[in-house]
Amino acid sequence: MLHKGCGILWTGSRRQAQCRGAELRTTDATIEPIMARSPFTIGIVQDAATADIEANVARAEKHIREAARQGAQIVCLKELFNAPYFCKAEQHDRFDLAEPIPGPTTQRMQALAKQLEVALVVPLFEREAAGIYRNSAAVIDADGTLMGVYRKLHIPDDPLYYEKFYFTPGDVSGGGKAHEVGGFKVWKTRYATIGVLICWDQWFPEAARIMALLGAEVLFYPTAIGWHPSEKKEWGATQVDSWRTMQRAHAIANGIFVASPNRIGREAEPGTDGIEFFGNSFIADPSGRLIASAGEEETVLIAKCDPAEIESTRRNWPFLRDRRVDAYGPILQRYIAG
Amino acid sequence: MLHKGCGILWTGSRRQAQCRGAELRTTDATIEPIMARSPFTIGIVQDAATADIEANVARAEKHIREAARQGAQIVCLKELFNAPYFCKAEQHDRFDLAEPIPGPTTQRMQALAKQLEVALVVPLFEREAAGIYRNSAAVIDADGTLMGVYRKLHIPDDPLYYEKFYFTPGDVSGGGKAHEVGGFKVWKTRYATIGVLICWDQWFPEAARIMALLGAEVLFYPTAIGWHPSEKKEWGATQVDSWRTMQRAHAIANGIFVASPNRIGREAEPGTDGIEFFGNSFIADPSGRLIASAGEEETVLIAKCDPAEIESTRRNWPFLRDRRVDAYGPILQRYIAG
Repeated sequence: MLHKGCGILWTGSRRQAQCRGAELRTTDATIEPIMARSPFTIGIVQDAATADIEANVARAEKHIREAARQGAQIVCLKELFNAPYFCKAEQHDRFDLAEPIPGPTTQRMQALAKQLEVALVVPLFEREAAGIYRNSAAVIDADGTLMGVYRKLHIPDDPLYYEKFYFTPGDVSGGGKAHEVGGFKVWKTRYATIGVLICWDQWFPEAARIMALLGAEVLFYPTAIGWHPSEKKEWGATQVDSWRTMQRAHAIANGIFVASPNRIGREAEPGTDGIEFFGNSFIADPSGRLIASAGEEETVLIAKCDPAEIESTRRNWPFLRDRRVDAYGPILQRYIAG
Repeated sequence: MLHKGCGILWTGSRRQAQCRGAELRTTDATIEPIMARSPFTIGIVQDAATADIEANVARAEKHIREAARQGAQIVCLKELFNAPYFCKAEQHDRFDLAEPIPGPTTQRMQALAKQLEVALVVPLFEREAAGIYRNSAAVIDADGTLMGVYRKLHIPDDPLYYEKFYFTPGDVSGGGKAHEVGGFKVWKTRYATIGVLICWDQWFPEAARIMALLGAEVLFYPTAIGWHPSEKKEWGATQVDSWRTMQRAHAIANGIFVASPNRIGREAEPGTDGIEFFGNSFIADPSGRLIASAGEEETVLIAKCDPAEIESTRRNWPFLRDRRVDAYGPILQRYIAG
């Protein structure tokens, strides 16, 4: 019989679980040992993009190989990885950048994943149909299988980030399958259960929470965020700090790893000052601590993620136990104040 | 006619609203000028508590007077302000510390509020009825009116924080009144619309979000959080940082001010190492920046809060516009993963 409240004796934790009734422990093979899962290693790629799509893909491939060489088992690229951030202006011919999933880029990445035995998160501009274009991320398992695609649910629209012109928001669908609810999805890759959200999604605690409830161990946020050059001096540091703080809070609130690869480089747009993408990619642990972080240079970040840390963090700060799911109904409203 | 997308011309903002059709502007008196609201000033009190209840109340009164002298119009005390943090052990006679609301302490605070013309948030141990005790906060307007009481919704339970023994969780109620939904409430005090949540509530983004949707301009989190002395060396700095990061993220996600007065001092509990309450009270602006912060000393923090900053922040990072209220249904579940 398993000692209630103790479970399998658990070592290496933040506070060791203490079992006062050691004689009650068992090796009953029907009980899945919760700590049997191994740590896994993730990598995120921070780089720029030019108008040369082929060069962008080749650069990403080089970085994925480097990440794998350093031990990464799951690698995530930046948002819309293979193209300039084209949303800086509303121009119909830029829809030409979109491609289907599966399509040439994902097929190439599937071959790479299989060769290196790494799972990949490949964010790109998806053409679903004429008139339906998406800001998407393909998820590929370590055997090269295309597991599926996440379509960005929260679409921004701000000067130079005219995303509502380009992207149909992700749809609310699913329900039947446990790993896919309301447009949110997680994938059980060979190495870990991962969730993928994209850029603007990172400002919505609801999205991170649902990913955790779906069982995500690590949440990837491929990103393209930068400064309006004219604002950088006054607001640059604050914006980076707000961006990082918000996502570290997702790690803390949910007791999960969070990894956010951002774009770098200044991209011009005629008639404007362009955007200076601010990098500062990072990986946070389930306490929200930065365990890997970048500046504004081309960088591959690597971090080992131990599922035991998720278990330990959630035992010590058991927020999921105490959520008032009976009281949160109003969160489904747009606004309530009368 | 008002120029759509421009509104009343708005100055002093982070990015000035630009109206390309200035000739369309109007001084139509039927349009409420959105920037007419004045800045308001808040104060929070960080102090310790001893077994001498009267001395605790007198100290709080002294600090409230000092805050008012410095211009504070709304003052919030720490969680369970007038008593030691009695939840360090489960002892039935400690229910004697509870009192009704209204009761002696809130009546005294009502008189003080009226005299100083300050609104007060007074967190204390409430006796609602025999067998129903609450971790509550009374809200008193600047004319001395007892506006109501918030009852802590999320109740922790952890070694030395045995709150589930003492406190009945806040109930899901209301619905009819716009300012009260599902146990969450905001109050339109003389100076600002305020929301109050208590301590453990601060780890739940759902709660902060609902407060913002209810129209809170500032969210108070009276708190009693500290270190287990044996953990302080290894985990102390991380715990303070996680605590602050989580709440700064509420400010960012919702574009509101957040103010958190915490307890200080080491409180003993026989048979244990006691708790060392870690202070570090702070006030954050709608970008999550600390505009006032304390160490571990007895402190009164004061900050001016300008509603124009809420407007400006939400125009520049318009998260509330883009929430996927159609997709968040799963957040009402305890867990989803299959």
